[in-house]
Amino acid sequence: MKITGTFLDEISHDIPHQNWGREEWDRDFGYMKSVGIDTVIMIRSGYRRFVTYPSVYLQSTFGCYEPPVDLVQMYLELAEKHGMKFYFGLYDSGHYWDTGNLQHEIDANRYVIDEVWQKYGHFKSFGGWYLSMEISRRTKGATDAFRTLGMQCKGVSGGLPTFISPWIDGKKAVMAASAGLSKDDAVSIREHEQEWSEIFDGVQGAVDAVAFQDGHIDYHELDSFFEVNKKMADRFGLECWTNAESFDRDMPIKFLPIKFEKLRLKLEAASRAGYDKAITFEFSHFMSPQSAYPQAGHLYNRYREYLEY
Amino acid sequence: MKITGTFLDEISHDIPHQNWGREEWDRDFGYMKSVGIDTVIMIRSGYRRFVTYPSVYLQSTFGCYEPPVDLVQMYLELAEKHGMKFYFGLYDSGHYWDTGNLQHEIDANRYVIDEVWQKYGHFKSFGGWYLSMEISRRTKGATDAFRTLGMQCKGVSGGLPTFISPWIDGKKAVMAASAGLSKDDAVSIREHEQEWSEIFDGVQGAVDAVAFQDGHIDYHELDSFFEVNKKMADRFGLECWTNAESFDRDMPIKFLPIKFEKLRLKLEAASRAGYDKAITFEFSHFMSPQSAYPQAGHLYNRYREYLEY
Amino acid sequence: MKITGTFLDEISHDIPHQNWGREEWDRDFGYMKSVGIDTVIMIRSGYRRFVTYPSVYLQSTFGCYEPPVDLVQMYLELAEKHGMKFYFGLYDSGHYWDTGNLQHEIDANRYVIDEVWQKYGHFKSFGGWYLSMEISRRTKGATDAFRTLGMQCKGVSGGLPTFISPWIDGKKAVMAASAGLSKDDAVSIREHEQEWSEIFDGVQGAVDAVAFQDGHIDYHELDSFFEVNKKMADRFGLECWTNAESFDRDMPIKFLPIKFEKLRLKLEAASRAGYDKAITFEFSHFMSPQSAYPQAGHLYNRYREYLEY
Repeated sequence: MKITGTFLDEISHDIPHQNWGREEWDRDFGYMKSVGIDTVIMIRSGYRRFVTYPSVYLQSTFGCYEPPVDLVQMYLELAEKHGMKFYFGLYDSGHYWDTGNLQHEIDANRYVIDEVWQKYGHFKSFGGWYLSMEISRRTKGATDAFRTLGMQCKGVSGGLPTFISPWIDGKKAVMAASAGLSKDDAVSIREHEQEWSEIFDGVQGAVDAVAFQDGHIDYHELDSFFEVNKKMADRFGLECWTNAESFDRDMPIKFLPIKFEKLRLKLEAASRAGYDKAITFEFSHFMSPQSAYPQAGHLYNRYREYLEY
Repeated sequence: MKITGTFLDEISHDIPHQNWGREEWDRDFGYMKSVGIDTVIMIRSGYRRFVTYPSVYLQSTFGCYEPPVDLVQMYLELAEKHGMKFYFGLYDSGHYWDTGNLQHEIDANRYVIDEVWQKYGHFKSFGGWYLSMEISRRTKGATDAFRTLGMQCKGVSGGLPTFISPWIDGKKAVMAASAGLSKDDAVSIREHEQEWSEIFDGVQGAVDAVAFQDGHIDYHELDSFFEVNKKMADRFGLECWTNAESFDRDMPIKFLPIKFEKLRLKLEAASRAGYDKAITFEFSHFMSPQSAYPQAGHLYNRYREYLEY
Repeated sequence: MKITGTFLDEISHDIPHQNWGREEWDRDFGYMKSVGIDTVIMIRSGYRRFVTYPSVYLQSTFGCYEPPVDLVQMYLELAEKHGMKFYFGLYDSGHYWDTGNLQHEIDANRYVIDEVWQKYGHFKSFGGWYLSMEISRRTKGATDAFRTLGMQCKGVSGGLPTFISPWIDGKKAVMAASAGLSKDDAVSIREHEQEWSEIFDGVQGAVDAVAFQDGHIDYHELDSFFEVNKKMADRFGLECWTNAESFDRDMPIKFLPIKFEKLRLKLEAASRAGYDKAITFEFSHFMSPQSAYPQAGHLYNRYREYLEY
């Protein structure tokens, strides 16, 4: 199972920034391309007051800061140069994390989607939309929000594809800023299937693909969860992608690149389950030869050897 | 607002050591100089049993370890070579952190100040003193200690300047060794002004400048706090510096280099408030091209571009 | 006191992997050799479902994953090439950490020891066994387990040496995944001596050397604990090694390379106590010029200068 897409983690929640300029990003897109990545997904266009592009709307409405560079334009240009598709991740106001209420995200993104399509819709590298709200099973009420946002994205853009990347509420589903690495009240496969079937049912037509994050369950649980995910995706007409996390959730330093053996286990489980596509969170910190974490460059080499083998 | 000073974080509380020798330090002073840094401040001359220079007094009185190199002498020589001013940070016995009582620090430093001036006062790069006790608003009783120590520093050295670098008791004022990133009982601007006015009043004449750490409040709070700081500094005749933290307080890894955009926001707020000088904590880990954190080298490049622009 | 041995931290509990291939390991053995290391110790042959060599027994009995490379064979070949001795670390099923019961480890390793000796016993670099269960004073019931496993290792291999590396239950004995750095209920020297005398008494004949981890006590406590350790080792006929930890336990990032001054303090205390050998946990992350942590390369340089001086 080859990784053909990666998130671009700007603006970041919990991964320290690399402070790259255009030169480093250009080179990184080249590294991505050379291992078969054809899709880049900007994880979110903004988080609270930090934004990735100069937005009249966000700056005047939410007091967002004027960004030092227009990352959206830069990514679209580089995607065009390297022959890749760019997915735009919606704005995250932070209200949902604070209050559990998604109405704010719906209202804000109604404007963002229009503004962005108007500014950047002419780029032929503009390939789709990422509904950036990360949800899990406890967020069933969110189905309507996803439906609304997905329909709007598709509406303005002539039906460009949309996807979501939720997490499985497994034993490793703990906050990045907590000291612990695991919890006791993980979801069972049966509950997972029941709850996600409802969500998939509610979003079909508005969401084209679902890419569950693969890092919250144990390695020997991969097959059972992946099988259920694929079955549900098929049933409700969604593409089933895997979001193969390339960072290690089992270590006290949160987070450094994953051990290659673990990434391999996850990719092979996705392959066995017949998944449609693999993307990763994310190449530039955790798999790039120029990453600030040199373990990432070694992971890149191990992964290349694996592809060639 | 250009950064013209940096701390040298030896002995460190919470930033892992780089294990540099003289060659690396010499090169680093060169990197500093090339972006306009003219002041280096040794953050403390010792912490508990670890010390930066061979001290008869500290080794015999507190059981401090014989240091492998005389960092004070090395820094003074390198400052002289590169045309920079060196500030000496006082000794931190650790008693204050354990007990909240500063008497111990006063007693120990009475000897340290004499010893150090006698050993190193002839260096023409010896430019001033840093009163290294990091306090916040809850430390009002500390005013006398600062006054005593500041007067003594000035007394032995013919009036060389002194400064302090306290923190604002904002929402990010949490311990480095805690898992969390923020707290709820942050200080209000009104309380901040009231409490710090008392402290400034008490130290005037003994302390020449105050460099508040800029990382404990949110970015959109910078203007309000900076305005009050400048107003108080003017009222009590202190210089108002900013201690622009170049590490990121918003990430689970404590601590890696800050995103350039955040550093820029803080420097520009200090500029708007009419601050007199910007120093940083600190160049060698977080902004240096030879830092063990490669993100620092990229921050250096982004900062250089910003200066040139 | 020269470091002449190092652990190889595969499979790791809490140190992120470097994703090295054979080329990097070969080069690293060269770096080790050049500072006098003649012994490499694989810290464990497996941990839960991850294993270092293809094991019919472990894969069929515990559902362990097929490893991507045979690390045991690779390490034995590289040890042979570089003229070093390789110690094999026993399998850790994880049951002991979960339940406090060691019976499982005894049962599993009975098979592992036979399997491994049959597969790899012909290598002339196969130099001994590491009983990998990390215990402390509260594990006195473990004496029988160590005795049983040690005797079996020696039995199959014609008496090759065995060793253990327990920790002192000092103030820094906290879990890697906890936020804190120290605890209050540290052991006293008297308790330490009493409890470890019982353990040493119970394992003599089955265990040839004990290498206490040196990082859980404060630097000024080193002499007292080391003196007692040496006295006990002499009394019960064990060799007394030190496991000089080359990572820093005093910092919020768990874990980066130690400050050279601290490593020096620990090595010199071991030398004063007349210890027989120093090993380290571990060279490849924390002291190697090619480590992903550049501080490690600087530590290597400082250590080399120290050896030459």
